[in-house]
Amino acid sequence: MQELDKNTLVDKILGQVLQEGVVSSGKEDKQVNNLSVGVTEFIGTAPIGDTIGMAIANVDPELFKHLHVEKPFKSVGILSARSGGGPQILAMDEAVKSTNTEVISIQLPRDTKGGAGHGSLILIGGNDVSDVRQAISTALNRVPDMFGDIYNTEAGHLEFQYTARASQACNMAFGVPEGQAYGMVSGAPAGIGLVMADVAVKAANVEVLSFASPAHGTSFSNEGILHITGESGAVKQAVMSARDVGIKLLSSLGGTPTNDYPSYII
Amino acid sequence: MQELDKNTLVDKILGQVLQEGVVSSGKEDKQVNNLSVGVTEFIGTAPIGDTIGMAIANVDPELFKHLHVEKPFKSVGILSARSGGGPQILAMDEAVKSTNTEVISIQLPRDTKGGAGHGSLILIGGNDVSDVRQAISTALNRVPDMFGDIYNTEAGHLEFQYTARASQACNMAFGVPEGQAYGMVSGAPAGIGLVMADVAVKAANVEVLSFASPAHGTSFSNEGILHITGESGAVKQAVMSARDVGIKLLSSLGGTPTNDYPSYII
Amino acid sequence: MQELDKNTLVDKILGQVLQEGVVSSGKEDKQVNNLSVGVTEFIGTAPIGDTIGMAIANVDPELFKHLHVEKPFKSVGILSARSGGGPQILAMDEAVKSTNTEVISIQLPRDTKGGAGHGSLILIGGNDVSDVRQAISTALNRVPDMFGDIYNTEAGHLEFQYTARASQACNMAFGVPEGQAYGMVSGAPAGIGLVMADVAVKAANVEVLSFASPAHGTSFSNEGILHITGESGAVKQAVMSARDVGIKLLSSLGGTPTNDYPSYII
Repeated sequence: MQELDKNTLVDKILGQVLQEGVVSSGKEDKQVNNLSVGVTEFIGTAPIGDTIGMAIANVDPELFKHLHVEKPFKSVGILSARSGGGPQILAMDEAVKSTNTEVISIQLPRDTKGGAGHGSLILIGGNDVSDVRQAISTALNRVPDMFGDIYNTEAGHLEFQYTARASQACNMAFGVPEGQAYGMVSGAPAGIGLVMADVAVKAANVEVLSFASPAHGTSFSNEGILHITGESGAVKQAVMSARDVGIKLLSSLGGTPTNDYPSYII
Repeated sequence: MQELDKNTLVDKILGQVLQEGVVSSGKEDKQVNNLSVGVTEFIGTAPIGDTIGMAIANVDPELFKHLHVEKPFKSVGILSARSGGGPQILAMDEAVKSTNTEVISIQLPRDTKGGAGHGSLILIGGNDVSDVRQAISTALNRVPDMFGDIYNTEAGHLEFQYTARASQACNMAFGVPEGQAYGMVSGAPAGIGLVMADVAVKAANVEVLSFASPAHGTSFSNEGILHITGESGAVKQAVMSARDVGIKLLSSLGGTPTNDYPSYII
Repeated sequence: MQELDKNTLVDKILGQVLQEGVVSSGKEDKQVNNLSVGVTEFIGTAPIGDTIGMAIANVDPELFKHLHVEKPFKSVGILSARSGGGPQILAMDEAVKSTNTEVISIQLPRDTKGGAGHGSLILIGGNDVSDVRQAISTALNRVPDMFGDIYNTEAGHLEFQYTARASQACNMAFGVPEGQAYGMVSGAPAGIGLVMADVAVKAANVEVLSFASPAHGTSFSNEGILHITGESGAVKQAVMSARDVGIKLLSSLGGTPTNDYPSYII
């Protein structure tokens, strides 16, 4: 404090804090940002998870060979995010249902900007770029809704997803039979996910697809993640029962688990 | 700064800073938090590493099949943390010695909330839930002690562990023969761990079990980790010699390496 | 705010903020810090990426067996960093050209202190420790230059590297034929890297060596990374074209992509 003027420093800190978004200026707008940035491939962003949507009309064939994708497609759509795997996968699951496109790659980086979970890179293929752009645009619009049952504290997070009819993205990512109900129960630190998983499978008659944990089926994320299927009412009941318990467990590490968007599993 | 009142903003920042624990209000209490949270499975938390302990009396058999665990157990105990692998493993190593329980899974997520190391998920099995709860409770109590030789700066960290008689957790995690002395020397960024490892093995007559690094034996953490065994005095001497050098090396990147609890390797 | 005096708190926060380097006191000095820290193995640090350089004159033979390195060497040099893989690899690529040393290991932890990318651990071998120290010292000096085309925002980062004549480090890390031109185009979140990759390969006649993404060829980082070779002018043109597009795409997630050192690909 000796050499620097404190008021100048306060201004500098405030400036930096505002710039870095440490103090948010209120609830973010749910609208997809589709301002033109002067790049043909750009479609828009979602207001959470640093999620960006893009599409390439004619992927260079030499590059395509290096994408580790089996089926060739002329046009490729891209949904890419720093934070969130489940919300983007579920949003894309709905988006491909209604368009002539197909999910061709789902990759889960170990990200979330210092958090315990995953980011995501999802690729879709189509033969017409307008179909691809439509699907990515739909997915961007749905991403905030799918963040409705993600609850955060400084210590960790909880995530819940549910759909009555899984489509191709859930099939590729989690092995859900297409057309069946699907539920996800995830907690971080991972042990909370395991206790919630036990609660979920005891709460209703559901089938366990898999249980992912730091060394099995995650990208070393600190999550315990249950994937279930079954009768849709039972799946939803299992997810909701786990949520009640998870919120109490995560609270024991301090803070109140809070979702950024309204819960959709009700 | 134009549109917002600066004092309001200062208050907002202070509130948020306090809420997020950026400025700590002093040394945390070492006591295990065992306040009831209204969940049967909850046992308590440790005051460091976002460490939580839980137990499931009768794990759902269908779920158990998906846990990647070989031996079946009726009751499962869980020690789960955002930060720290070594401290939780060493704490559990002691806890299972004295109870009728067994370590059945040790998983190391790439975590530490933006730091360079691991979190942990440790599962123990038992046929009586009271044994399992006792072991987890003992481990929670020992976790802070085992953080005694973790030294942090903004640039990285150093970790040292030592036991005169390793038990089942150290055997499973690091390949230490049960009943033998065990020493760990770890540094981040990883290169510091490598130089410390060389110092350690030259300082005393010890046996190298393994050396883990970002691409070998870690979950892509930025650590160099030496695991050694041998005569207990030699192992301790090797660890202490490495510590002297590590503290100087980490200091070269700025800051003073500081431990949150008193050193126990003395 | 009730119980604490606000001015005291402001002082405390300012102190902590300054200590933690949240507010930098201006441009860091580019000079390598080679202050003695009282450890023989220490060579110096680079002023970015928490990069440290060290050398061991005679590696303990028992330890060497556990380093997962094929060729034995008496002396080992170490370049280790929390943030940055490309810059350190390119810096080492130049350093080994001019000294009697050889790169023997390149490992990429999933690090960057909460960012989307990699840290690095690079080992070189030599029979004379003075050669090894010289190479590490040269690499430390070059690291800041190689950060010249890394552009950061709160949402992600872009990285570009180029050399007219790749040497042994680029060969080991990226499969570049020695003596050929090499270009890297990387973006985070990963989807931005994919769109830039398509722009790059369409902009000039280059050969794709590989495309790395979260599940293929990275340590689960959230990057899309194109590696190319070909005629040097074409490689540079491809990299520069991708850079123009990447800066616009990353800007769409907020903030202005900014480099800490002057761009060297011009």
